[in-house]
Amino acid sequence: MTIPRMTDHAGEWLRGAGPQSEIVISSRVRLARNLAGYSFINRADPPQQTEILERCRKQIMDGHLGDDVLWVSLTECPQVDCQLLVERHLISRQHAAANELPRAVAVDANETFSIMVNEEDHLRVQVLRSGLQLEEAFDQVNRLDDALEENLEYAFSKRFGYLTACPTNVGTGIRISVMLHLPALKLTGEIEKVRRAAHDMHLAVRGLFGEGSEAHGDLYQVSNQTTLGRGEREILGDFQHTVVPQIIAYEQQARQALVQHRSVQLDDKIWRAWAMLSHARTLGNEEILALLSHLRLGVNVGRIDKIGIRQINELFLITQPAHLQKIGGTPMDASTRREARATLVRQRLGVA
Amino acid sequence: MTIPRMTDHAGEWLRGAGPQSEIVISSRVRLARNLAGYSFINRADPPQQTEILERCRKQIMDGHLGDDVLWVSLTECPQVDCQLLVERHLISRQHAAANELPRAVAVDANETFSIMVNEEDHLRVQVLRSGLQLEEAFDQVNRLDDALEENLEYAFSKRFGYLTACPTNVGTGIRISVMLHLPALKLTGEIEKVRRAAHDMHLAVRGLFGEGSEAHGDLYQVSNQTTLGRGEREILGDFQHTVVPQIIAYEQQARQALVQHRSVQLDDKIWRAWAMLSHARTLGNEEILALLSHLRLGVNVGRIDKIGIRQINELFLITQPAHLQKIGGTPMDASTRREARATLVRQRLGVA
Repeated sequence: MTIPRMTDHAGEWLRGAGPQSEIVISSRVRLARNLAGYSFINRADPPQQTEILERCRKQIMDGHLGDDVLWVSLTECPQVDCQLLVERHLISRQHAAANELPRAVAVDANETFSIMVNEEDHLRVQVLRSGLQLEEAFDQVNRLDDALEENLEYAFSKRFGYLTACPTNVGTGIRISVMLHLPALKLTGEIEKVRRAAHDMHLAVRGLFGEGSEAHGDLYQVSNQTTLGRGEREILGDFQHTVVPQIIAYEQQARQALVQHRSVQLDDKIWRAWAMLSHARTLGNEEILALLSHLRLGVNVGRIDKIGIRQINELFLITQPAHLQKIGGTPMDASTRREARATLVRQRLGVA
Repeated sequence: MTIPRMTDHAGEWLRGAGPQSEIVISSRVRLARNLAGYSFINRADPPQQTEILERCRKQIMDGHLGDDVLWVSLTECPQVDCQLLVERHLISRQHAAANELPRAVAVDANETFSIMVNEEDHLRVQVLRSGLQLEEAFDQVNRLDDALEENLEYAFSKRFGYLTACPTNVGTGIRISVMLHLPALKLTGEIEKVRRAAHDMHLAVRGLFGEGSEAHGDLYQVSNQTTLGRGEREILGDFQHTVVPQIIAYEQQARQALVQHRSVQLDDKIWRAWAMLSHARTLGNEEILALLSHLRLGVNVGRIDKIGIRQINELFLITQPAHLQKIGGTPMDASTRREARATLVRQRLGVA
């Protein structure tokens, strides 16, 4: 598996299947781990950083995690490939930023997991699954964690639990998040109520690319904020059985309200989105996310059947800047990307 | 001919034919006349106003101007019908405004001429023709003027010429104007240069509905400002042979520049316009004029052939508020009109 081949398909988590996939795009469980006997990355000197990277690489790539694991050294990776990995949610924006820190990511062939080495912590192990599959993701991340721990000793305190570079991760070191598509709550203006409710439950609501990013395409990442003093299963149970079903119910109510009481305005949004996607000759990145969001809503509420959810999910991904350039096989400035984006969409919609 | 039947077709001036009709929508020549021996309308008392109206009506309707002339008393006319006449450029907005002043308009079956009685002047005689046909319009308005003068004595001063309520009309009492479609000058940002040049030549540049109106749909009315001290033929010659051809040349250059150097951006505008018109479920009045403008440009520069110019011209007219309500046969609030507008357009484009 090479990075260029990644653009041929979307990761498992984008296939648009799995429980509640009309609203829950994906479930993610991430563990933060650090090796015992080493400083945290921001305190380690370059030789130590390299040693940590090497120890992790060996353990990750020795075959225990599967045969088809790709190792990408980010210091050697072209910028567009780093960006591609960000767009695919395999690494963080911070991990992709150009710097000298020796760091890498390991990814399996289906992109169900990725392991960032020398990001904020020595190890960030994440599992991404399609739809609402937190328990499955949790089981998988635990198996990965066990396999890594066979020959790596983690920094652990009996009093605090797993030690991490940022205090918000100390304890279980777990972060659980779901990517939700909430177009109806946005259209009805109720999204702020959901944000406030989530805030009261100590949850973070973020945009498409995590911290500090905007909720383009009406895509929201909801995640737990604290990991200290609570068990993993407790955090997970909260999410799977209380938080997410509640937000899903709100979104479904908003969708029903639109269908029943504002059907013309709803159809207007949906058909305008289809019209722009199938006719525009240039499309900006934020604009296409907004259009795809309305189209996805339209398919999910049964008002349009010209395209499937999986195709729409893929379009969310492959129309992003790095993907466009990898698919086109050439670097592109913003204006060229806008044209390439519109052309690619029309091709995928079968109207070009 | 009754007002309801007007919505079946557009007037002669909107048929999209005639010289230079790619850019010149229509040519208009208007005369201002007042009867000798009466005060101007704003000074006349109600009995006088009625007497003026009656004298004019008799002369207009006695058959000299043609057999199929419609007389509409605006004090008895429902508001929506008055608005319809404004949208068809048969009366001014001022003439349509609700008030007690006895006033009327006479219109021929093809809507080549309209005669407003008791607007700002006792008589406002206008001829509207498709494309650049100022001389034809002038000849026709002169014939009408002669026919009216057979039994009406006009207020005339040897020193000043025809006397009118507003000093800007004194002299020939003539106003010459063309309705121009200038989408390329708008897109390239050069329209302000044209406005300034027109201003320097003592021309007025106004929007779709004359004084104080916006240039929605990139439609501009260019007209002469002064009528005193210059002969009719001189004013007309200026317009026909200097002013209008110059603006036409500017617009054509701008169109060529778009086609040659910004073809993707141009196609983007054109196809987005087509997409919105053929898919939207609600359309605002200003939005549709902007979309029709880009579509009209697209047809004229040969980038799209899904519709003819005459159909587009008609859509400019029949999607306006009063037309929508007459066609629908019922009063409509703004929100209902937006839906009716989108439905009507899709029907006319053959996509509904």
